[in-house]
Amino acid sequence: MVRGIVIDAKEYLIKTSKELDGPIRQYIGDEEPANLIAASRQYPYAGGKRMRPAMVLAAAGAVGGDVSKAVPLAVAVEYIHNFTLIHDDFMDGDEKRRGMTTIHIAYDVPTAILAGDALFAKAFQLIAELDVPDRNMKEVLRYVSQAVWDLARGQQMDINNEGKIVSEEAYIETIRLKTSVLFAAAAAGGALVGGAGEKIVTALHEYAMALGLGFQIFDDYLGIAGDPSKTGKSVGNDIRKGKCTVMVTHAMRNIKDPKVLEEFKGILGNMKATEEQTARARSIMESAGSITYGRQLAQKKVDEAISKLDVLAPSEYKEFMIALARYAIDREV
Amino acid sequence: MVRGIVIDAKEYLIKTSKELDGPIRQYIGDEEPANLIAASRQYPYAGGKRMRPAMVLAAAGAVGGDVSKAVPLAVAVEYIHNFTLIHDDFMDGDEKRRGMTTIHIAYDVPTAILAGDALFAKAFQLIAELDVPDRNMKEVLRYVSQAVWDLARGQQMDINNEGKIVSEEAYIETIRLKTSVLFAAAAAGGALVGGAGEKIVTALHEYAMALGLGFQIFDDYLGIAGDPSKTGKSVGNDIRKGKCTVMVTHAMRNIKDPKVLEEFKGILGNMKATEEQTARARSIMESAGSITYGRQLAQKKVDEAISKLDVLAPSEYKEFMIALARYAIDREV
Repeated sequence: MVRGIVIDAKEYLIKTSKELDGPIRQYIGDEEPANLIAASRQYPYAGGKRMRPAMVLAAAGAVGGDVSKAVPLAVAVEYIHNFTLIHDDFMDGDEKRRGMTTIHIAYDVPTAILAGDALFAKAFQLIAELDVPDRNMKEVLRYVSQAVWDLARGQQMDINNEGKIVSEEAYIETIRLKTSVLFAAAAAGGALVGGAGEKIVTALHEYAMALGLGFQIFDDYLGIAGDPSKTGKSVGNDIRKGKCTVMVTHAMRNIKDPKVLEEFKGILGNMKATEEQTARARSIMESAGSITYGRQLAQKKVDEAISKLDVLAPSEYKEFMIALARYAIDREV
Repeated sequence: MVRGIVIDAKEYLIKTSKELDGPIRQYIGDEEPANLIAASRQYPYAGGKRMRPAMVLAAAGAVGGDVSKAVPLAVAVEYIHNFTLIHDDFMDGDEKRRGMTTIHIAYDVPTAILAGDALFAKAFQLIAELDVPDRNMKEVLRYVSQAVWDLARGQQMDINNEGKIVSEEAYIETIRLKTSVLFAAAAAGGALVGGAGEKIVTALHEYAMALGLGFQIFDDYLGIAGDPSKTGKSVGNDIRKGKCTVMVTHAMRNIKDPKVLEEFKGILGNMKATEEQTARARSIMESAGSITYGRQLAQKKVDEAISKLDVLAPSEYKEFMIALARYAIDREV
């Protein structure tokens, strides 16, 4: 690329997602039984942001590798993401995803569990067939299998902590496991397929880990400070659900007046809280500096992510990785 | 070993299962969250026959390999088997397994799904760490990931066909996917870890595939012709549930008298059938030669399995593999 061209992360994602349409359809053949195959296909075929596979491809390109060889891994990572979405949607009782009825409702619960399991298995079939030296494939397998182990732990922590306000440390650990580890495996895996050595693989792994945290922390920030007409979320919702975020844990530590703290705790997690009450809770958090703290922490994680990319030579892919990190905290939805 | 020593497959399995107790406990560390870790451990720690890991170890030894190097793969295959049991028990609504309450009841449904997913991931983490040439590890990964894909298909077919009498071919395909493929991946994987070449790996894969079919067909035979005081199953149960077996499909094809066929169909799948009625159905099957047919088909699969072992040099491990195949159709429970 010509240096200095600014990449629009969102447009780049849309373009990459379109390019992945074919490959994502390529690896699930018309086998029996038809209902399992159709259920397995629904989420991956439906699109979504496809940030994880884009990360695989960008990492492979950014280290100077042959991006086309990274396509099967990109698809594998997206299948894994979709496997967790299918299982999580059932556990969380969600009824809609990407504009469609979720698998456990559109089909039934056993089919949803098996469709998830099948996508999981297919991902590892794709990894086994990667056109890279066996040693690199083995490293990819390490990163990805560790990520899936961690994803299960993260989802279980999330379930265990539902409705509880845990420490900031415990919250960060949960989102690290639920969000960052698969991003990080995608980046490290792409770099490995691209032929990178350990130092660069580790740097890209750290980049994506920090980016995942920044992304999720900013998501939480949008949930409380975003424009409801754009995010599609009522600002009071996270407060009513008592959702633990770094902003809430900050508020718990930093509200100095015991009476205000009691008032705040009384609103948090109260499903019947009025708009006035949730607005009051938000204003308490604002006064405590908690909302600014959330935004700044997301910014800090993104800065940290971008700093890890110093090991890379200039390229369009590197620019995308920087743009993606910036986009994580510069969006309205 | 001294040739000619007869190996008792059951005793050998008990001995191997005990030897695996340590390794099976070794690979799931004390991580967070504790409830997920405890749930993941319950089935593998509780024992069971552990036929699949025994198959891994025997195959590695039978090809002249270092059996100790196959231990992590043996554990991985057992974790995969247990992952499918956890998910299947939930789907099938089973409340007891190995004398304990099943995971989705002892914990809850999300924990059961995640414990299964976690064991699945852990299995691939173990495969990534196998102490074998990377090329062999890659082949192991191929076999095992294909097997898990097939297991999901088999379980879905089983659910789809519940209460239906399908063709013998369709039934055999279901049990091939539900039972044989993981046996076969265990045998092929063990052989690969043992350093075997393609010809022997393929032979052991075919051995275990046929053995799995013989084992399951004989299980069905025991369900209708076994001693209820030993099998713990009422002989009429499979008839009342309308369970499809090769004996039932044989009866459907071979009962010549249309009135008798109607009578048979009237009892099959009738949950309210009396003891007299189920005894009558069994007697109809007996007259049609269907029960003998089932036993003979199991025998045929086992003979086929054993014949595949001709490629192996004599060893204790080969003897066990032969004994295991014979045991599949020479047991009362």
